[in-house]
Amino acid sequence: MTTEFTEGNGGPGFQPPHDDSPTLTHLDVQGQAHMVDVSEKVVTARVAIAQGQVLMSAATFAAIEAGNAPKGDVLGTARLAGIMAAKQTAQLIPLCHPLPLQKIKVEITPDAQRSGYVIQAIVKTKSETGVEMEALTAVSIAALTLYDMAKALEKSIRIENIHLLHKQGGKSGEWHTSKI
Amino acid sequence: MTTEFTEGNGGPGFQPPHDDSPTLTHLDVQGQAHMVDVSEKVVTARVAIAQGQVLMSAATFAAIEAGNAPKGDVLGTARLAGIMAAKQTAQLIPLCHPLPLQKIKVEITPDAQRSGYVIQAIVKTKSETGVEMEALTAVSIAALTLYDMAKALEKSIRIENIHLLHKQGGKSGEWHTSKI
Amino acid sequence: MTTEFTEGNGGPGFQPPHDDSPTLTHLDVQGQAHMVDVSEKVVTARVAIAQGQVLMSAATFAAIEAGNAPKGDVLGTARLAGIMAAKQTAQLIPLCHPLPLQKIKVEITPDAQRSGYVIQAIVKTKSETGVEMEALTAVSIAALTLYDMAKALEKSIRIENIHLLHKQGGKSGEWHTSKI
Amino acid sequence: MTTEFTEGNGGPGFQPPHDDSPTLTHLDVQGQAHMVDVSEKVVTARVAIAQGQVLMSAATFAAIEAGNAPKGDVLGTARLAGIMAAKQTAQLIPLCHPLPLQKIKVEITPDAQRSGYVIQAIVKTKSETGVEMEALTAVSIAALTLYDMAKALEKSIRIENIHLLHKQGGKSGEWHTSKI
Amino acid sequence: MTTEFTEGNGGPGFQPPHDDSPTLTHLDVQGQAHMVDVSEKVVTARVAIAQGQVLMSAATFAAIEAGNAPKGDVLGTARLAGIMAAKQTAQLIPLCHPLPLQKIKVEITPDAQRSGYVIQAIVKTKSETGVEMEALTAVSIAALTLYDMAKALEKSIRIENIHLLHKQGGKSGEWHTSKI
Amino acid sequence: MTTEFTEGNGGPGFQPPHDDSPTLTHLDVQGQAHMVDVSEKVVTARVAIAQGQVLMSAATFAAIEAGNAPKGDVLGTARLAGIMAAKQTAQLIPLCHPLPLQKIKVEITPDAQRSGYVIQAIVKTKSETGVEMEALTAVSIAALTLYDMAKALEKSIRIENIHLLHKQGGKSGEWHTSKI
Repeated sequence: MTTEFTEGNGGPGFQPPHDDSPTLTHLDVQGQAHMVDVSEKVVTARVAIAQGQVLMSAATFAAIEAGNAPKGDVLGTARLAGIMAAKQTAQLIPLCHPLPLQKIKVEITPDAQRSGYVIQAIVKTKSETGVEMEALTAVSIAALTLYDMAKALEKSIRIENIHLLHKQGGKSGEWHTSKI
Repeated sequence: MTTEFTEGNGGPGFQPPHDDSPTLTHLDVQGQAHMVDVSEKVVTARVAIAQGQVLMSAATFAAIEAGNAPKGDVLGTARLAGIMAAKQTAQLIPLCHPLPLQKIKVEITPDAQRSGYVIQAIVKTKSETGVEMEALTAVSIAALTLYDMAKALEKSIRIENIHLLHKQGGKSGEWHTSKI
Repeated sequence: MTTEFTEGNGGPGFQPPHDDSPTLTHLDVQGQAHMVDVSEKVVTARVAIAQGQVLMSAATFAAIEAGNAPKGDVLGTARLAGIMAAKQTAQLIPLCHPLPLQKIKVEITPDAQRSGYVIQAIVKTKSETGVEMEALTAVSIAALTLYDMAKALEKSIRIENIHLLHKQGGKSGEWHTSKI
Repeated sequence: MTTEFTEGNGGPGFQPPHDDSPTLTHLDVQGQAHMVDVSEKVVTARVAIAQGQVLMSAATFAAIEAGNAPKGDVLGTARLAGIMAAKQTAQLIPLCHPLPLQKIKVEITPDAQRSGYVIQAIVKTKSETGVEMEALTAVSIAALTLYDMAKALEKSIRIENIHLLHKQGGKSGEWHTSKI
Repeated sequence: MTTEFTEGNGGPGFQPPHDDSPTLTHLDVQGQAHMVDVSEKVVTARVAIAQGQVLMSAATFAAIEAGNAPKGDVLGTARLAGIMAAKQTAQLIPLCHPLPLQKIKVEITPDAQRSGYVIQAIVKTKSETGVEMEALTAVSIAALTLYDMAKALEKSIRIENIHLLHKQGGKSGEWHTSKI
Repeated sequence: MTTEFTEGNGGPGFQPPHDDSPTLTHLDVQGQAHMVDVSEKVVTARVAIAQGQVLMSAATFAAIEAGNAPKGDVLGTARLAGIMAAKQTAQLIPLCHPLPLQKIKVEITPDAQRSGYVIQAIVKTKSETGVEMEALTAVSIAALTLYDMAKALEKSIRIENIHLLHKQGGKSGEWHTSKI
């Protein structure tokens, strides 16, 4: 089984993908998905901020706002679900690296004009790779949790415009979305 | 501790919420989040279909389509991530009931015009409650996985318009979105 | 490998333990831990209520009560952690059966006299076996979460008297603790 | 989006695969992986028994046997790991259905002649689909756990011949391996 | 969306809480739960030891002691459950940081006088934050597992006095409980 | 409770096992399983490569190869399952340390002569302990997933010869299997 050995020792099958080149880094030279090798990257402090929205009818929005009176748990439940989901990112996104996380915060702001909520998540790590997926996962699960708590009121709630707002740390440095 | 006992035996604190009334069913009379009591509901066959989109630049879209050549794993990875996430729904959405699932399917269709992908998930169960959240979770995680695999190409990819398409089974019967 | 075959077909090694006899049902005839066979038991509606306490200094108690002002998340976080943990019981307690759960509710009541909190959880299922462990796990994790949120204030917080209050359904029928 | 709707309502993309036909049931007509639809199958009592072996040097075998003196935890740890892993099968094997499990038992028998251990797992359910994967997963993780506990002694331990011994219930009825 | 941006860049909504001040560090300035920012804290070696008790009738205690004869798995199962649960702490306690763990040990000592068991767990890490919750979680789940294995014998088993014994490392340095 | 304290402070019960000595390192002086203390070991870059095989009838092999036509998902699903399982190793193998992982790759190579597949996994970390178990777990779960996808075709598929191929880093340095 010499050939396997060659592979085993780091032959063509195993060469590290060019992680920062503008290619699909999660596919190797044979087009197969793998978790990219970050062992050569340096550990730096990294931050990612993501955002999304949950839009609904005015009536549903009013009911949640009412339900969210003192001691109401609606937004608090969604925030916690987002925080806990961020810690599950590497189990949910197949090719994500498991990372230590040093801060997770989810903020949910009512947007009465559009009758919905703006969800923002910030995540920090010190690692060889970034936490964009952790922040986006926190936003997504917080949004789904809001949906879950309101779905008895309205089946046509929509989750919209989940995207990255801000990224810091690592080779590519600081980045801000240009979408205002 | 008589009062607690009274509660313990099903006193005011524990009365089942009116599950199908147009209220925030996940909040009890004190506005506290709980997993609603479905023990009085009947087991019926249920189906839910959800949909969402991942939109990106034409260049990124072209790269994924290219990467998705024979044996390419991009869409296949996203589909699997969605299927596996549907099975994790009750762990991710705090107040969801753990359910047996009898079918999960995720379909990802390229949308060249909008330079992105349409993700659709169908989930089936036989249970006292529906699988909307399972279908929506499958769509959301499949979308995040697509994002993850393309994020080295473009940071401004957006996940859009995650919503329920279709629902069948249970008291509320069949429902279709009116958004075409 | 005839002997293995004999075992494989349900030989001495595999006979079902006498599930309801007053013995350590999780140990088989050889004293080995296993998940007991409930396939011969009937599915019935079951309820379990468990309770525990978190005791702390008057100063810590006051700080939590203050922190738990309108929109404060302390007790809400502990309640949710308990609900989510109940759904993880079969992953945490090695020999527990995975069960469908139809209701989970956690209540946390301040006890100013003892400067602490009383945590009560109620869980319902329709299954061949009961949900005592689910209710006890919900109480335990809710208690640990309260501890976590207050530990910066006081290191000597104690979790006390976690026990079953009430049990209903199954062969052994209804049971109430005699401890008042 | 009429076409999607058609699909959404059970169009060509969604027809249930012929679950018991001699094909790759986990691939749909487009060759895409999905969790097969078992909603039309009947619930029956099902049993699966799987087996595998862990082979090592005589010296390593002797050390484990010695370590497994009264109160020793080696085989007990492997048994428990197998039982707990069976409950994780649907999270580990992407297209497995989450199932209720009514019995899990893992037996580990020393095989002095081959200097190793025979691991056997039996799993029971009442469901629309079988528990072969649960039994095979229990055997595999129990074997890996034995490996883990002995790897400081020997790096060339091998896990061999993991296969299904016996299967009962469902359309295909009873089956025994012919390999003796 | 300038305001959000401001927040996104670390505005009032995102300032790190004063982690070691005697306040509810898991609540931010708006009283919302979040995972505290430990990115400014230094990595140090940390140890935590926690303890708890499981108390039962003399008859139940005797049965477990008997069941725990050579090869018996009762205490071994509880120890393992505690060790595995410590690794799940960040998934169970919503605001805990995921940490690398370098040692986990659970000891269960019979206490014939009180007819029960004393459970002690020690956990080590090198991290920006401590492992008290990991040690307390190990004790709690080990206690619940003992309960589970004996509940067929007695429904009124109690878990008592779960608390921190010892803490080392980090800003606050060494600490011992004064409760003897 | 002085004795406990002594233990608590690192008495006989808690002395670190001699991690690299040729003994069962996961058993302490009392023969009890624990997670070994690696806090004194140095962090080094580590690699592990493991391998295994899935053997089946020629007919089943042909069907998978056919099913694995362009866009077919069979091998891709197994690869992903292996990658995701490697990240779950510390949850599956009771005494494994949770580790950061910097690369995971699974390769599946058809072996027409033996009518089956060779599965190879490579895992990298920078840690105090190695990743053999992560690589072996990836191979095992990828093999089980292949089994799952083909089991409708053949019940007598076998998983064979799971073993470590190569190990690098740490005190014991580089190692290659001598089995060619």
